[in-house]
Amino acid sequence: MIELYAFATPNSVKVPVLLEELGAPYEFHQVNVRAGEQKTPEHLARNPNGKVPVIVDRDGPGGEPLTVVESGAIMVYLAEKFGRFIPADPVARVRCFEWLMFQAAGLGPMFGQSGYFLKLAPEKVPAAIDRFHAEAKRNMRVLDGRLAEAEWLAGDEYSIADMATFGWIWRRAFAEVDFSEAPNVERWFGAMEARPAIGRAIAAIGG
Amino acid sequence: MIELYAFATPNSVKVPVLLEELGAPYEFHQVNVRAGEQKTPEHLARNPNGKVPVIVDRDGPGGEPLTVVESGAIMVYLAEKFGRFIPADPVARVRCFEWLMFQAAGLGPMFGQSGYFLKLAPEKVPAAIDRFHAEAKRNMRVLDGRLAEAEWLAGDEYSIADMATFGWIWRRAFAEVDFSEAPNVERWFGAMEARPAIGRAIAAIGG
Repeated sequence: MIELYAFATPNSVKVPVLLEELGAPYEFHQVNVRAGEQKTPEHLARNPNGKVPVIVDRDGPGGEPLTVVESGAIMVYLAEKFGRFIPADPVARVRCFEWLMFQAAGLGPMFGQSGYFLKLAPEKVPAAIDRFHAEAKRNMRVLDGRLAEAEWLAGDEYSIADMATFGWIWRRAFAEVDFSEAPNVERWFGAMEARPAIGRAIAAIGG
Repeated sequence: MIELYAFATPNSVKVPVLLEELGAPYEFHQVNVRAGEQKTPEHLARNPNGKVPVIVDRDGPGGEPLTVVESGAIMVYLAEKFGRFIPADPVARVRCFEWLMFQAAGLGPMFGQSGYFLKLAPEKVPAAIDRFHAEAKRNMRVLDGRLAEAEWLAGDEYSIADMATFGWIWRRAFAEVDFSEAPNVERWFGAMEARPAIGRAIAAIGG
């Protein structure tokens, strides 16, 4: 059994998406980041970085419980544990890690900062809005370029790279990014949204 | 032979650090990001995201050349190709991916934005400086907490997680972060700086 500590955020949702695709049983424990619950002593004991998602695999290596933080690392851990959704073909495996990292290091942070300065910041800061909104839109175009040449981010196979990226496109309105310059992302997003596992994951997390 | 397209940046330097630790032969091709060379058609053909580093492994899977982008993905690819610097122990492997992702998704972007708004932005934007400088310092404290409990980021073994993080600590003055609240990072950085492979990597990249 996997314990999932999460909220209905772009980075959180990737984990129930993968768990649902795997058919792996899990228990959802909401950590309300709007109420600051990710910074409580109880949650900081799970993740000193004060972020969601976190999992506790009660049946980790050697049968011991294992806590895993960082959504990208959770995706790799679960995909390897179950032996699915990381391509075996060596080139597709490289593409999977490239797009997993592009989401973690680029698209995710830029969408996040775009949304913060557009929607949440206590004051309007035009220089920061311009910088991050432009970067968010540029990242969307880069993603679209990949999906113009391949069905899925790793190539022919649906993988954790797609699942990791899904949440940010699902919440694209936060960053004020849309499909107007990204028809291939729109096609890909539609194919993902139609997957029953993704519908179940969103329902489970309260999105 | 590995072709390395890079500049003396925190994300670039991790790749020659790993190549030097592996003793793998490589050819360094400078892409001068200060002169905008990462946005030329020639470089965009290698990486449509317009970033460094990029490698071309002339002896990739099946003996074919393979281009790999995203510094975190390059680290995983090379560590797996040579079978070194990713722990075999399953718990240490999880820790390695957690800290690789923490660098890619958290510490790297926050140090980068802190440095941008402190040093490069055409106007002073106090709200952005305060946000990113505080986050950069907080990320440094989180890193310090890990290095208070473990010798290396993955645990007992030196790994690609350490090498990936090294460049940002090497260039910490850019983000205006120091060791005053991070004595364990200071100890770890000293141990890394003393490694001959790291000295050779910095010299090779012109840092």
